[in-house]
Amino acid sequence: MIRHDERAVHELRPIHIDTNYLMHPEGSVLITVGNTKVICTATIEEKVPGFLRGQGKGWITAEYSMLPRATAQRTQRESARGKINGRTMEIQRLIGRALRAVVDLQALGEKTVWIDCDVIQADGGTRTASITGAFVAMAQAIAKLGEEKPFETFPIIDYLAATSVGIVEEIGAVVDLNYVEDVAALVDMNIVMTGEGRFVEVQGTGEEATFSRQELNELLALGEAGIQELIAHQKEALGTIAALIETRKEA
Amino acid sequence: MIRHDERAVHELRPIHIDTNYLMHPEGSVLITVGNTKVICTATIEEKVPGFLRGQGKGWITAEYSMLPRATAQRTQRESARGKINGRTMEIQRLIGRALRAVVDLQALGEKTVWIDCDVIQADGGTRTASITGAFVAMAQAIAKLGEEKPFETFPIIDYLAATSVGIVEEIGAVVDLNYVEDVAALVDMNIVMTGEGRFVEVQGTGEEATFSRQELNELLALGEAGIQELIAHQKEALGTIAALIETRKEA
Amino acid sequence: MIRHDERAVHELRPIHIDTNYLMHPEGSVLITVGNTKVICTATIEEKVPGFLRGQGKGWITAEYSMLPRATAQRTQRESARGKINGRTMEIQRLIGRALRAVVDLQALGEKTVWIDCDVIQADGGTRTASITGAFVAMAQAIAKLGEEKPFETFPIIDYLAATSVGIVEEIGAVVDLNYVEDVAALVDMNIVMTGEGRFVEVQGTGEEATFSRQELNELLALGEAGIQELIAHQKEALGTIAALIETRKEA
Amino acid sequence: MIRHDERAVHELRPIHIDTNYLMHPEGSVLITVGNTKVICTATIEEKVPGFLRGQGKGWITAEYSMLPRATAQRTQRESARGKINGRTMEIQRLIGRALRAVVDLQALGEKTVWIDCDVIQADGGTRTASITGAFVAMAQAIAKLGEEKPFETFPIIDYLAATSVGIVEEIGAVVDLNYVEDVAALVDMNIVMTGEGRFVEVQGTGEEATFSRQELNELLALGEAGIQELIAHQKEALGTIAALIETRKEA
Amino acid sequence: MIRHDERAVHELRPIHIDTNYLMHPEGSVLITVGNTKVICTATIEEKVPGFLRGQGKGWITAEYSMLPRATAQRTQRESARGKINGRTMEIQRLIGRALRAVVDLQALGEKTVWIDCDVIQADGGTRTASITGAFVAMAQAIAKLGEEKPFETFPIIDYLAATSVGIVEEIGAVVDLNYVEDVAALVDMNIVMTGEGRFVEVQGTGEEATFSRQELNELLALGEAGIQELIAHQKEALGTIAALIETRKEA
Amino acid sequence: MIRHDERAVHELRPIHIDTNYLMHPEGSVLITVGNTKVICTATIEEKVPGFLRGQGKGWITAEYSMLPRATAQRTQRESARGKINGRTMEIQRLIGRALRAVVDLQALGEKTVWIDCDVIQADGGTRTASITGAFVAMAQAIAKLGEEKPFETFPIIDYLAATSVGIVEEIGAVVDLNYVEDVAALVDMNIVMTGEGRFVEVQGTGEEATFSRQELNELLALGEAGIQELIAHQKEALGTIAALIETRKEA
Repeated sequence: MIRHDERAVHELRPIHIDTNYLMHPEGSVLITVGNTKVICTATIEEKVPGFLRGQGKGWITAEYSMLPRATAQRTQRESARGKINGRTMEIQRLIGRALRAVVDLQALGEKTVWIDCDVIQADGGTRTASITGAFVAMAQAIAKLGEEKPFETFPIIDYLAATSVGIVEEIGAVVDLNYVEDVAALVDMNIVMTGEGRFVEVQGTGEEATFSRQELNELLALGEAGIQELIAHQKEALGTIAALIETRKEA
Repeated sequence: MIRHDERAVHELRPIHIDTNYLMHPEGSVLITVGNTKVICTATIEEKVPGFLRGQGKGWITAEYSMLPRATAQRTQRESARGKINGRTMEIQRLIGRALRAVVDLQALGEKTVWIDCDVIQADGGTRTASITGAFVAMAQAIAKLGEEKPFETFPIIDYLAATSVGIVEEIGAVVDLNYVEDVAALVDMNIVMTGEGRFVEVQGTGEEATFSRQELNELLALGEAGIQELIAHQKEALGTIAALIETRKEA
Repeated sequence: MIRHDERAVHELRPIHIDTNYLMHPEGSVLITVGNTKVICTATIEEKVPGFLRGQGKGWITAEYSMLPRATAQRTQRESARGKINGRTMEIQRLIGRALRAVVDLQALGEKTVWIDCDVIQADGGTRTASITGAFVAMAQAIAKLGEEKPFETFPIIDYLAATSVGIVEEIGAVVDLNYVEDVAALVDMNIVMTGEGRFVEVQGTGEEATFSRQELNELLALGEAGIQELIAHQKEALGTIAALIETRKEA
Repeated sequence: MIRHDERAVHELRPIHIDTNYLMHPEGSVLITVGNTKVICTATIEEKVPGFLRGQGKGWITAEYSMLPRATAQRTQRESARGKINGRTMEIQRLIGRALRAVVDLQALGEKTVWIDCDVIQADGGTRTASITGAFVAMAQAIAKLGEEKPFETFPIIDYLAATSVGIVEEIGAVVDLNYVEDVAALVDMNIVMTGEGRFVEVQGTGEEATFSRQELNELLALGEAGIQELIAHQKEALGTIAALIETRKEA
Repeated sequence: MIRHDERAVHELRPIHIDTNYLMHPEGSVLITVGNTKVICTATIEEKVPGFLRGQGKGWITAEYSMLPRATAQRTQRESARGKINGRTMEIQRLIGRALRAVVDLQALGEKTVWIDCDVIQADGGTRTASITGAFVAMAQAIAKLGEEKPFETFPIIDYLAATSVGIVEEIGAVVDLNYVEDVAALVDMNIVMTGEGRFVEVQGTGEEATFSRQELNELLALGEAGIQELIAHQKEALGTIAALIETRKEA
Repeated sequence: MIRHDERAVHELRPIHIDTNYLMHPEGSVLITVGNTKVICTATIEEKVPGFLRGQGKGWITAEYSMLPRATAQRTQRESARGKINGRTMEIQRLIGRALRAVVDLQALGEKTVWIDCDVIQADGGTRTASITGAFVAMAQAIAKLGEEKPFETFPIIDYLAATSVGIVEEIGAVVDLNYVEDVAALVDMNIVMTGEGRFVEVQGTGEEATFSRQELNELLALGEAGIQELIAHQKEALGTIAALIETRKEA
């Protein structure tokens, strides 16, 4: 058996990160991972949620959505249904939490970075593409903030990217599952990792199945390699902003 | 005084209509009108709303939304607010009604065409760009339906496009207002018209202002000319599908 | 063919405007247009919405609703459904916008006039009857405000009334459509106009139909005549308050 | 001390019941109790709620609402708030339950009677006026049903009316409280009773106060007398329909 | 005929009031009335609702809910339905109102006591068990408040308990109905009473039935006796706190 | 440094599983893990969600909630807020997914098992206690189903339990965090595992922190040991039902 799209088990789909994709936001990218396309924007708001007020710390929060025809079947809009479903909530909480792990919120100061990830075409891996793209949009927005009024310490302390890994019947462990593989996977895992190779999130789920410690180890190794490749793309996309992150990492 | 972006009063902004923009929908375009960008998709559903069931007639319905950072300030998502605001409702009702005016719903048969217009960048005229783009996406989806199972009569009876006209202080009547002009306009009018030059919608509003019969006539003339230009772009974008519409028009 | 209720094409239905219809509101009328009956009230609130605060300007906003049995079939209450439908939203936005066109919001000062239009019996033309009645309720409430503390300049700058016009098969253009005519109309247009004969809103819609420039002209002419007749009724209903408006118009 | 509006303690306010108030509903009245005015309508629906289906029994359900300016201060619409408040829920459950107590639901057959009570002017006692008026609207609607297809047994088995009683400081027990009395009352009780003098509902509440058995007895006596007076008004309003109820009572 | 569970007509089910049932709340009990079990908690909040602010008075408010499987059939959660139903609203308004009748809100000071009644097992009489249990939880929370900062006057002025009474076919008037009796009852009445034997609430309802003055008297007598028995259980559960209430009653 | 409650790093809090806790549900337990207490019930419904209909497979779905005063500060009810928050959604999706991993849905047949987990007292680890308790309630409900109509194959294929592990500053990796530890943890991980020692879910999250591969290994080892201890408690609580599971495991 070979993979649905003939990739090797450790092979990511083609990645493109188009920066400054929209005219209005402080940071914006269109990230393309195979056929999955997500518009990620970052907006700076000069205040923080109530529970943080007056502490001098910033906050990062994310929203995630899909266009109705990002998918093969039309999905009803959450605005039309009048409520956000559980999957969307999980994803937006995950994106915000992941990004906060690589930001020094004290150095950011009392500001909120709003991340919006809107999937315009979905073919598996939309949440991990969102994290990978959102990191770049956020870095641009924060760098722009620094241009207006330089930070004492640049608030981004490391790169951050995400990918999926999973166990597919008759193939075994693979990285960066497309939609067809995702549906067929026995085990599905999302990994979020920093440039230094430290974990931020590990979310593995047996889909009416279970997995051994041995299988877990294989999945983690595949994910780690894939994420370092994604981070190379982020560096390239960020251009001069990458230097700000490097300097902070060395500090 | 000259216009904000130096156009002549009768001059439209640059138009691009990229067809087959997304992989999943039956019809999809990215329409660009100046800096305004809207993804329009058309989805065929094999049933009709309850009030039409069993009559052999089809239906066309539309939804409209903006990404949060389509605008200069971030707009809260309607899904997060849990309800759709009045402006959105007006626009989606308008889009659906306008498209139905040029479709022979009997010839379409018991099917619903779902139109989704998602504004990814807004600079004025998002509702008229949505109608102009949605017409093309709808035509593609209906043509595709005809390829699978030919229609006795092609259901689209004429072209349809829309533009805005308005009265701007110190300039007077202009066509295709961008956001800056729209905000400053004393009178704002949206016109939807067919290829034959017949009106489908005329919605003129004094913004804490009023307008004379003479001014109304000027606005209608500007709109009419602009729409014929837009329809030329649609024909080009539609390629061979345009022939199906022409044949029906002649019938 | 003659009209459903035997009126001439240019003939309005019988109009009554009962003022001071309720004991609590600052202004209230029961307007009767044929079988259509709407209670319109005006409430003065001593503050303005957030976006206007501190500018010394007032605001006018409207809400519209129908009793469940205003209609031939019982309509579910919007409170029971938990949301307001698109038609209601469009109408309440229209009423507020129309009234603001004839009020000098600076002269009004930082106050909101809340207009409530509740249809107790519907037979076509509820939105235009609402505007015509709401103008009278608003004028009373503003005049009462002036009695308590005289305005430097009376804030109402002209009369305002509205009617519907449309094209009915086998009859052609008619004014003030009742429900039966409205359902059958090919083209439906609402016109809001001032005492001076200037347009405030023109909203014409082909109902799965289109209309020519020639037809548009006929409709506008019928509407203009009808509205001047409605304004004569308003003057009579307003009594001494009419003088305040006349004085302002002459100023 | 005398009562706020100089009535005797056992004296009701002036009552008027205008029948056939609206053109569309099967039954409709405008009931006036002093300054309190309620439009009550009855609608027949040819089906029953799920829990009753197939049992051959009918159902009666009620909805209650107030126009925003029925009250001295404008009340926000429940449709705008997006939910119905607790007081409204209590009242509509009470109205439905009370009416069901005097209807033979088996004789009615598988039909629902929808009662709508819309308060257009409020001055205390809106829920009891609603019940008293709704009984008349319901009787008309059911009688009309019987005209189309005669009942074997007329489904209404007795009259039903309601009033409030209460204990007002320095005055004591009084009947039919207006708004000023209601606000000042230490104890507030609503009584719903049949023509035969049997209780359907007794709801007495100490408002941050308590009441003795002796006081309860006084309140019940006042309520009983008031209700018999209200039923006399209902009989008069019902005209020939009263005979149908009398016949059923004798059966 | 004897009662479903063989009790005498005037016999309550076994009562237990377990105090300090939970570790976090200021007051908490598990009240067991036969098979009905309710967790009642009292929370002190150092502010009052807007309409009371600045008056030096306190407030008591209640919320009531059932676990989905408190009942024989699973009930959908109100959080999943997105709205609270009418029955729940009525009950929580009743609990709050009843408790306020025995609290000197001035002596309490600007604080809100939040009462939460969560039914974990239901077998009839959940609202009256909630009131009886909530009184004990509230007394504990207020006593605890007094330990931290002694009150000039202890705010609880009397005991408060509640029970149901009803008329069951072939048996007649009974007290403390279980679920089977409740469903079968022709008349259902909830009585809330103080230690002094004064009424706070009397809510009697014919369930598609009516009741005479004579029957009402029987029901009131049964309820009065039952409530005094419940208050004896409360005194025992409250231990030393009972003395604070006694002292206030004597004052 | 020692742990907040003096436990060893690998030491679970005291566990109790009280079975048949409520009278109505098919399965119900009160699970106590230290001070955390959760009522778990299982309800059998004789139908499946739409997407499974007609496939002969069953489904398991879960709902999770906390009483308002399960926590140190009162939490607003989700029913009062009108929507379920993201954390609740995540937890209920996790519980359902985890249980489905050890159930042979084909063997269950077209039935839904509804799991309700209601936290009555919270001190950390409510989601893992919910899973551990829910497994027992589910096993009871399914065993009861088998008593009524024996299964060909018993549908539960293995035990399932969950615990939390985390990294606490100055202490390192620990198992079964209480609330104080949970708040202070740098890394928080929930592990769901079967009796055979296979993973069902691994969800590790850096809380504004990251973790190395080495730390991940330590956490997994602690979790594994803790879960086997929990499963021993489940076996004891299940009594004769444990034999059914063992038999299936051997098959």
